[in-house]
Amino acid sequence: MKMRVEELAEIVNGRVVGDGETQVERIADLEHAREGEIAYVENEKLFAAAAESQASCLIVRNGLEEQLPNRTLIEVANPKLAFSIIGATLHAPTRREPAFHPTAVVAETADIALTAYVGPNVSIGEHTHVGAYTRLEAGVVLGDDVTVGDDCVLHPNVVLYDGVSVGNRVILHAGVCLGADGFGYVRHDLGYQKFPQVGTVVIEDDVEIGAHTCVDRAALGRTRIGRGTKLDNMVHVGHNCDIGERVVIAAQTGISGSVVIEDDAVIGGQVGFGDHTRVQKGAIIGSKAGILPGKIVRPGVWWGIPVQPLDQYKRMNAHLNRLPQMREELKRLQEQIAELRQKLAAGGAD
Amino acid sequence: MKMRVEELAEIVNGRVVGDGETQVERIADLEHAREGEIAYVENEKLFAAAAESQASCLIVRNGLEEQLPNRTLIEVANPKLAFSIIGATLHAPTRREPAFHPTAVVAETADIALTAYVGPNVSIGEHTHVGAYTRLEAGVVLGDDVTVGDDCVLHPNVVLYDGVSVGNRVILHAGVCLGADGFGYVRHDLGYQKFPQVGTVVIEDDVEIGAHTCVDRAALGRTRIGRGTKLDNMVHVGHNCDIGERVVIAAQTGISGSVVIEDDAVIGGQVGFGDHTRVQKGAIIGSKAGILPGKIVRPGVWWGIPVQPLDQYKRMNAHLNRLPQMREELKRLQEQIAELRQKLAAGGAD
Amino acid sequence: MKMRVEELAEIVNGRVVGDGETQVERIADLEHAREGEIAYVENEKLFAAAAESQASCLIVRNGLEEQLPNRTLIEVANPKLAFSIIGATLHAPTRREPAFHPTAVVAETADIALTAYVGPNVSIGEHTHVGAYTRLEAGVVLGDDVTVGDDCVLHPNVVLYDGVSVGNRVILHAGVCLGADGFGYVRHDLGYQKFPQVGTVVIEDDVEIGAHTCVDRAALGRTRIGRGTKLDNMVHVGHNCDIGERVVIAAQTGISGSVVIEDDAVIGGQVGFGDHTRVQKGAIIGSKAGILPGKIVRPGVWWGIPVQPLDQYKRMNAHLNRLPQMREELKRLQEQIAELRQKLAAGGAD
Repeated sequence: MKMRVEELAEIVNGRVVGDGETQVERIADLEHAREGEIAYVENEKLFAAAAESQASCLIVRNGLEEQLPNRTLIEVANPKLAFSIIGATLHAPTRREPAFHPTAVVAETADIALTAYVGPNVSIGEHTHVGAYTRLEAGVVLGDDVTVGDDCVLHPNVVLYDGVSVGNRVILHAGVCLGADGFGYVRHDLGYQKFPQVGTVVIEDDVEIGAHTCVDRAALGRTRIGRGTKLDNMVHVGHNCDIGERVVIAAQTGISGSVVIEDDAVIGGQVGFGDHTRVQKGAIIGSKAGILPGKIVRPGVWWGIPVQPLDQYKRMNAHLNRLPQMREELKRLQEQIAELRQKLAAGGAD
Repeated sequence: MKMRVEELAEIVNGRVVGDGETQVERIADLEHAREGEIAYVENEKLFAAAAESQASCLIVRNGLEEQLPNRTLIEVANPKLAFSIIGATLHAPTRREPAFHPTAVVAETADIALTAYVGPNVSIGEHTHVGAYTRLEAGVVLGDDVTVGDDCVLHPNVVLYDGVSVGNRVILHAGVCLGADGFGYVRHDLGYQKFPQVGTVVIEDDVEIGAHTCVDRAALGRTRIGRGTKLDNMVHVGHNCDIGERVVIAAQTGISGSVVIEDDAVIGGQVGFGDHTRVQKGAIIGSKAGILPGKIVRPGVWWGIPVQPLDQYKRMNAHLNRLPQMREELKRLQEQIAELRQKLAAGGAD
Repeated sequence: MKMRVEELAEIVNGRVVGDGETQVERIADLEHAREGEIAYVENEKLFAAAAESQASCLIVRNGLEEQLPNRTLIEVANPKLAFSIIGATLHAPTRREPAFHPTAVVAETADIALTAYVGPNVSIGEHTHVGAYTRLEAGVVLGDDVTVGDDCVLHPNVVLYDGVSVGNRVILHAGVCLGADGFGYVRHDLGYQKFPQVGTVVIEDDVEIGAHTCVDRAALGRTRIGRGTKLDNMVHVGHNCDIGERVVIAAQTGISGSVVIEDDAVIGGQVGFGDHTRVQKGAIIGSKAGILPGKIVRPGVWWGIPVQPLDQYKRMNAHLNRLPQMREELKRLQEQIAELRQKLAAGGAD
């Protein structure tokens, strides 16, 4: 899609400097941008690159007009944000025509919006609802009594077990699995009895979930992913977790059962949560951290195994790095004391 | 399904207190239970919640009748176990009608039990056997010469490579992959030559495997998951591993090639095993532990990277936490020695 | 397939000792080998097992003829490599007949080689190219504008998003997902705006990728996996990564965005990479290591969280293990100093 700089500026509430009639077709980075492309300048370090960029238009922070003379600019408060919004406009996903692929298998009692797209080999169960403009790509499997809202994209081979509920504008990448049984057993003399997993999963609006991430159903009740939360690839969310709104969780993090993560938490990759932990609003947890069962993680930045405040973690690391030196000092002290003793003995013998 | 308390008590070998004719339809937790629901009281801390619960029946430990007067109870030795068994009865998975979906693609030489359910877009290879009452949900792919026993459930998009063998009453959650090639290569001057992966995978009876878990085929011989073992989501089991009976392994744990885990071991999440390690019967390994190649993990509780007995791990952590204090003491000693030296020098100068 | 020892020796440039006419049908390990099978002797420790092996032929290192008298041998420089090559010959994957399963859904504009195999329920998008002798197993989904080269195997349920490019002789195991959106967002007052993910993924020749591994598309530009590189199961490769040639990465390792891994690096399992790290040619990183964002990992062996040279890691661990002893020494020193002080005071009082 081609758009004029003027039009793009309007979308992001920006100010045009230079030729607002310039046509832009694609986004690009400063270095690789060509004619017809728009790039953004994140900070001052990139001014040199910006000056040399072949981009037809640059998005810059307010007030930088003089730093980049003779260029067509869009000035905004947050160039990266504006670039993202403009990118979403120029590269809008090709809207699939509403369609119902002949190979799709849809239960008679299912309720599919007329504007939805149901791709090849999709399978939809009884009493399942699919909302307006939602796209189910090839191989998606929806169980019985599933609800998927409007404007969602379910990429190939996503699986939603019976009863799972998904809000509006949700993106589920390939292979996402929602609603598999939680991992709960009761040990007895002969082995393990499965603890019932009869709850469900609720995904709220504007959530995006990365490829192959699994969110297990609750044993009783529900597992929840709050509005606007983003999960990366291969995250594991155990049964009965309650993940708040606008939470960000990086790849391969594992969350045991009954964990609560409050709004606006930021969690790195490969973090492990023991069951029944609680992460308070706004806490930030570094990659690879480990949180012991039942722990409450307060606001602030956390790090390490087991998790501790970043400051403390750094201090501890500094102490560790000084260990060889401490050993040296200890030896020196031993020698000095031996020497003192000798002297004293000699003095006493005087 | 509705059942009378009397009937339920019989299933779990329990004693009815109160009205055995009470009808129960669903399980629930103490807090959310309503009329027609049954809950369980795990321990004394929950007596207050139990007293206020709206549940029609409570499952309690033997001899607690007087603690919860005027309630309909089922007394048993292990309430959580009884609750699980009753839950499995009340919430039995809807038995799929034996069926053979027209979109399923089944080789002519395949041998499918008449009572099996073969869902939409399932694909079954040559000489593959599917047992009685086994359910293959949408998108399941079975290669050639695969054996799946009776009463199994293979959730959507499970993939079994050629030659894999699965016992009876096995549950494989969505996306489970059994029998992909193990990770073995021989380095030569120009790169890597694939080491042959021509063995197989054997899953014994009563195993449950979580979503997206992968068990690789053996290079030569077989990779085995023993009877009654339970694997959580996204576990990786490398080629030639031998996992015993009634082993429990939590999510995202990774097991390198040729690891032996003996019966009744309990393994946390995100644990990593070097190749050729052996975990002895009954060992317990905490989450995020790391086990070096070739290590033998004896019975007991183990923790940390590299793994060590929990006691030792705790002692080490205590020592670490005392590091700042040790440094302080070291400084104090240095001062004291300097002082002593001075005094001695002064005394000597006398 | 049956072959004579003479023929097999020729393939691996080996020297026959004994009867070159012996027929061999399968590979096996020393212990389990039977008549008609060939095994290899990796080192001297296995001579006893070799002498007792029932294998019809043994592959041994050059010059070992006398150690194993009266046996049919193939002498080579590298027995494991020769065994692998012979295994690949004897156990060549059954070439699927070129076919186009009637349940496959293929866009009219797609360009599929006549010698390709397109399995059941495969879905192929617009303008997508599939090369000669390539096998797409059941349930594979290729988006629009995808390129897959010659002689590839895509196992069941592999998903390639739009625009992804795969070279020749590439093996993708079940559930591999290439080209899902990278994990990038811009925080604003109300939540997160998705950063555009409009780049692509390029997989070069001779790459093998394990089950369920995910390689995300670049935000802008491309994510690359270089020629001859091998990824194990459930590896996560973030957007804009550049992985070189002949790199080996074990299971469950997670690689954040914009990481560069140069040729011939060897990476263990469950390693975590912060974004913008660079691993230099030939570096070796142990399992479970953690690499902080922006770090440069130089050639050598690395270990730990955060990653450090193995030597240093070992020294640090030795220091840690001496901590209890250091504490003891510190106490002893305190006592000795107290004693000295007393003596000195007593001496002064003299």
